Amino acid sequence: VILVNGEAREEVSALDRGLAYGDGVFRTLRARAGAVELWRQHFGKLRRDCARLRIECPAESMLRAEVDELVTGERDCVVKIIVTRGPGGRGYAAPREAAPTRIVATFPPPPQRPDSDKEGVRVRWCETRLAHQPALAGVKHLNRLENVLARAEWDDPDIAEGLMCDASERVVEGTMTNVFILEGGRLVTPPLDRCGVEGVQRERLLGLAPEQGIACSIEEISRTRLLAAEQIYLVNSIVVLWWVARLEARRWARADVTPLLLSILET
Amino acid sequence: VILVNGEAREEVSALDRGLAYGDGVFRTLRARAGAVELWRQHFGKLRRDCARLRIECPAESMLRAEVDELVTGERDCVVKIIVTRGPGGRGYAAPREAAPTRIVATFPPPPQRPDSDKEGVRVRWCETRLAHQPALAGVKHLNRLENVLARAEWDDPDIAEGLMCDASERVVEGTMTNVFILEGGRLVTPPLDRCGVEGVQRERLLGLAPEQGIACSIEEISRTRLLAAEQIYLVNSIVVLWWVARLEARRWARADVTPLLLSILET
Repeated sequence: VILVNGEAREEVSALDRGLAYGDGVFRTLRARAGAVELWRQHFGKLRRDCARLRIECPAESMLRAEVDELVTGERDCVVKIIVTRGPGGRGYAAPREAAPTRIVATFPPPPQRPDSDKEGVRVRWCETRLAHQPALAGVKHLNRLENVLARAEWDDPDIAEGLMCDASERVVEGTMTNVFILEGGRLVTPPLDRCGVEGVQRERLLGLAPEQGIACSIEEISRTRLLAAEQIYLVNSIVVLWWVARLEARRWARADVTPLLLSILET
Repeated sequence: VILVNGEAREEVSALDRGLAYGDGVFRTLRARAGAVELWRQHFGKLRRDCARLRIECPAESMLRAEVDELVTGERDCVVKIIVTRGPGGRGYAAPREAAPTRIVATFPPPPQRPDSDKEGVRVRWCETRLAHQPALAGVKHLNRLENVLARAEWDDPDIAEGLMCDASERVVEGTMTNVFILEGGRLVTPPLDRCGVEGVQRERLLGLAPEQGIACSIEEISRTRLLAAEQIYLVNSIVVLWWVARLEARRWARADVTPLLLSILET
């Protein structure tokens, strides 16, 4: 079922600026046993992203009611929320009185990777580079062709994720995850002020890990530095936390601290 | 009237990847008295852009029939064609059997700027920078937030267009036009292999001007070089060719060669 502006329907205007220009933002969150996870963080991020594009954010109570309508009675599912600037005419100038479109849809949860907690996941490098665009960096907007191109680089189902660099060969993120590395017992994640998406789980880990005595730092990470890490982690709201067991030829065993990190993010 | 996959309808699937990720391309062309202009060039560019994103391009005869269906009997109008990778599920990986969506819509022609041929147009600089992304450069894809942000920088209707630079302050294009400058009787336009859209009128002018004895060259253009030009031109399929009379404080008179350039591009 899909709700478009609160009504059950499958379609949106062919003139929506979300389609014409990718003029909008989105969120992907998880619901278990009918309960939405991390709503406060996701709605906060949605509001900040809308503000970055000067799109009016839907009222929280209305949006939450629509999400609840879809997830109530469901077992586990993934919820996707899209907010666009709404229908427009032709041309880049937004209508003076834009009426944002909100779309709420649910999807089945992705298949759990067998024993990913115990066995870790396999990842690869992507050739597609993330361009530097400070005006859009951090925002989960609908201009996602770089991610589409990167994800199209492999179709081996054993590879869980691809790592993306910028043009200066700095590691930025996975196609759908944020990246952390473990170095001497502390966590490091790259800055996202030139490119990349600031995910909710990245923000949570940066806030919660220090409370468990694990220092966190935002620093540039070269490929060499990543390969030398004691462990690589990938986080998002759907997979929560993956540890990387294999990146092309390089292999890692599970670090002792990994179960603690997973328990920090599990709600 | 809008045709979606050949059927008259106003809407597209809320799960279309054009909306979810901007995963598609588009064209904007002109029809006068029921006749589409520059079809061969536009369809050729659409096919090349689809190939860049590995989207299956609609068959030319089918698409042309749909465009003709909408423009026959119309006076002047603007035709917009969108081709997306089609509906998808959640996640960046494209469905193995993608079924592209094609949308054909017509719009009223934009109001003619009073005497723009004789008086020229006023333009401004945009603060929004175009990011370097060679994998997408040149393609008229649906990831157009940079153009949206740039166009939102002004709402003075006397300003016809905004000029955009890359992060190195090289002039790349207008928000909706390609840029040429006149220098010593020859035309220069910037390379578009890192960012920008390769428009059909840019390609035409590069091909046709030399036949009239006006040499053309693709070279990097700094802001200083642009300001020192004898004339600045902006081209696209809707406005055809504008000459810039004023860029912020700097003013130009119409160069002697300008009417010839306009006549070259007028079909």
